[in-house]
Amino acid sequence: MNTDERFMAIALDEARSAAALGEVPIGAVLVCDGEVIARAHNLRESAADPTAHAELIAVREAAVRLGRWRLSGCILYVTLEPCPMCAGALVNARIDRLVYGAPDPKAGAVGTLMDLSADARLNHRYEVTSGVLEEECAGLLTQFFRELRAARAAGSAPGPDEGQEETG
Amino acid sequence: MNTDERFMAIALDEARSAAALGEVPIGAVLVCDGEVIARAHNLRESAADPTAHAELIAVREAAVRLGRWRLSGCILYVTLEPCPMCAGALVNARIDRLVYGAPDPKAGAVGTLMDLSADARLNHRYEVTSGVLEEECAGLLTQFFRELRAARAAGSAPGPDEGQEETG
Repeated sequence: MNTDERFMAIALDEARSAAALGEVPIGAVLVCDGEVIARAHNLRESAADPTAHAELIAVREAAVRLGRWRLSGCILYVTLEPCPMCAGALVNARIDRLVYGAPDPKAGAVGTLMDLSADARLNHRYEVTSGVLEEECAGLLTQFFRELRAARAAGSAPGPDEGQEETG
Repeated sequence: MNTDERFMAIALDEARSAAALGEVPIGAVLVCDGEVIARAHNLRESAADPTAHAELIAVREAAVRLGRWRLSGCILYVTLEPCPMCAGALVNARIDRLVYGAPDPKAGAVGTLMDLSADARLNHRYEVTSGVLEEECAGLLTQFFRELRAARAAGSAPGPDEGQEETG
């Protein structure tokens, strides 16, 4: 495993923690100077908070820990391509680099539907690497929604809605 | 004053609270069924948190208060046009409507640089009304940055950076 894969493996562990709570399995890790500063997973249902995406929680925790809102020198690893909210938060945080696993055809805002990482009109741009451990990242989501469908077919329907809710 | 102006006046009070802390004066109010559920102001510097925009704080507080992440039936009032992060958070929250005061030529994501409120590829759209108490909303920002420049010229330089930091 190279460095990016090692950190993405931690993000995958976070995604599994989300699944264990019945949350859509998305995980994130924020790294500064080679050190993990924050790790987080999607908590939208548990926290009843529409902003509780893995990336946003990791950014907030890292800022608190570092005592500064500018996360220059930092890299965010996340299993799924960020949505507009999270991609915009990385602009606001002046992050150096984003590494993501699987693309998000429904809400991906860093290359798929739009690219907020490279909009010259905004006051910051960040480097992007995609496709790191993509199969594992996408596989966790596929498995989660397959099990959700099966549970629903069996008459129990806990957890988030399908389809439109697969957003990171 | 009509209903929108009455709620925007509360958002303006919040913006003044931000200015009193040395924060860029942006305020927000979240209204559900005609009742104020949350009010907030920009706290980026005080909280050292790049996500602590008025809108995002109001959305989170409203969700906690209502015990649900879906803010359907709710309207957000904010003095400055939201940035991509905040405009995306309103999509994620499934908000009904956004009302803002002044446009933001530097980062406005609800009509100026882009329009995340009406992107048919995303899983939610919301109604937008702009220009409500626009002069007062813009005037607070102009005055704040004028005073900041004067303080800097006098040799004291507290508060946020100018220019690229005028983002809501």
